[in-house]
Amino acid sequence: MKIVALAGGVGGAKLVHGLAKVLAPQDLVIIVNTGDDFEYLSLSISPDLDTVCYTLAGLANPETGWGRANETWTTYSKIVELGGPGWFRLGDLDLATHIERTRRLGAGQTISQIVNSFCESWKVAPTILPMSDDRIRTKVETQEYGLLDFQEYFVKYNCSPKVTGFQFQNIENSRPSPGVIESLRGAQAVVICPSNPWVSIDPILGVSGIRSSLLGKPVVAISPIIAGKAVKGPAAKMYTELGYKPSALTVAEHYRELIRGFVLDNLDESIKPAVERLGLRVLTTNTMMTNIKNRIQLAEDVLNFIGSLL
Amino acid sequence: MKIVALAGGVGGAKLVHGLAKVLAPQDLVIIVNTGDDFEYLSLSISPDLDTVCYTLAGLANPETGWGRANETWTTYSKIVELGGPGWFRLGDLDLATHIERTRRLGAGQTISQIVNSFCESWKVAPTILPMSDDRIRTKVETQEYGLLDFQEYFVKYNCSPKVTGFQFQNIENSRPSPGVIESLRGAQAVVICPSNPWVSIDPILGVSGIRSSLLGKPVVAISPIIAGKAVKGPAAKMYTELGYKPSALTVAEHYRELIRGFVLDNLDESIKPAVERLGLRVLTTNTMMTNIKNRIQLAEDVLNFIGSLL
Repeated sequence: MKIVALAGGVGGAKLVHGLAKVLAPQDLVIIVNTGDDFEYLSLSISPDLDTVCYTLAGLANPETGWGRANETWTTYSKIVELGGPGWFRLGDLDLATHIERTRRLGAGQTISQIVNSFCESWKVAPTILPMSDDRIRTKVETQEYGLLDFQEYFVKYNCSPKVTGFQFQNIENSRPSPGVIESLRGAQAVVICPSNPWVSIDPILGVSGIRSSLLGKPVVAISPIIAGKAVKGPAAKMYTELGYKPSALTVAEHYRELIRGFVLDNLDESIKPAVERLGLRVLTTNTMMTNIKNRIQLAEDVLNFIGSLL
Repeated sequence: MKIVALAGGVGGAKLVHGLAKVLAPQDLVIIVNTGDDFEYLSLSISPDLDTVCYTLAGLANPETGWGRANETWTTYSKIVELGGPGWFRLGDLDLATHIERTRRLGAGQTISQIVNSFCESWKVAPTILPMSDDRIRTKVETQEYGLLDFQEYFVKYNCSPKVTGFQFQNIENSRPSPGVIESLRGAQAVVICPSNPWVSIDPILGVSGIRSSLLGKPVVAISPIIAGKAVKGPAAKMYTELGYKPSALTVAEHYRELIRGFVLDNLDESIKPAVERLGLRVLTTNTMMTNIKNRIQLAEDVLNFIGSLL
């Protein structure tokens, strides 16, 4: 079964890790959010791409949800000693990725060419595609600080400012990266990973041609909100601040027009009838991916669920 | 005695290290070559400035003549694994300097502001001034590869191509950095360090106003060539390829118009009469700076020699 997954950072990376263990490499394409990409220390950083790649390569730091395992901090501590900014920590292993990416971008390579080459080095078998090779920048509108880069909001201010809206700068001029539309057309189903709907999935869906390529396809979304709380990150807080009740039902409503099936955690079994009333088929299962076994189990559950929708 | 020293990399760094141990910080200004600066891995590298600063800060690697002591190579090895270039090695400690410099240049700081701030962090007491805040690029004309960046010639090709000439790109449009002319005017004497005359000292002298500020001053040069050989680097090879006999006498002739005194190594005692025939006063002493004692001894010898010229 040929599957395309739409993924942001940690939650998306965990599910595609499971999918990659279950599907043949040629049957899995992962389209990753690049709206969080930003420049820091004159380096081009792609947080979601790196989290997905490191996770699939077995290089990810399992404790932080970002960066690499067995990391050291030699360069970064010296940068801070010299007066450089300290709010976004970059380990020595991780820095290599950012430096080499920046060098290649400067030499004219596209972000999709770079990811493809890095995945070869890291022996990542499934195809990973950035949503676009064009520069799209997710900005968070906040009450306290005005417009922030997503990573400023997320890391520098630790998600504390009150969110009033989002901008995906330059998205209207962007095109999907090579292979994105083709892989969506060729997919038997599309999985929307348990990533933040506002800032991880909406930017992907906003790139021209992606949303329309999903229409008529079996699309399944997994709720990133369990029992009213985000597993990680600010999704639930964002819903509240934007005037929605943070719950898996709100997520289902968010995607309603696009999806055929919705995956709830067992803890949210009580919401199932309400989601079904939206006209969606529902799978209730364990969606907490605390270890590789859970990831594989959820991937298998999602694929079986998709099978039942075809 | 207020001294200004003109310095390139290793040889210059060693002598100013000695001078810094002998002179009060406010009596020593070091004007450093920036013609070797270049971009590598999208980072702005200033090899001579770093060598001088690291040496004065006690951070230099005494074995290599470049980079920092107790260095590690985590990031760099990963960059090479990802397919990045491997010919100019950057250690984890050293990388911090380049990354923070690049960030600050991108934020609009000048190279002299950056050096000043770094020297504060590193507790380097004498004033270190880049020759210019403008971008000057030393290019080596070679028979085999045409025009090379100096560091390409020096590191990538290990000085093997035959040199046919030099270019100091943009030097005619450059201005000395703030403080350079003032410190030369206020100096009682100027020391031309035992650096490469062609590619370390000539670019400094080529920045507008620097050469003319030396006229009429007691200027002393220390030969970087001992017994026909460069202590380090390609100076002797360059002389041969450009049709000169590599010797301390050739160096004295190189600087003849500018200098009042010339310092020869004991091994070159036999050249003394020929240098004196150029109209120069000569000091013969040990100029091999293998350890800090030698550096201090040479600095004292040079200062005493200057005293005798005033």
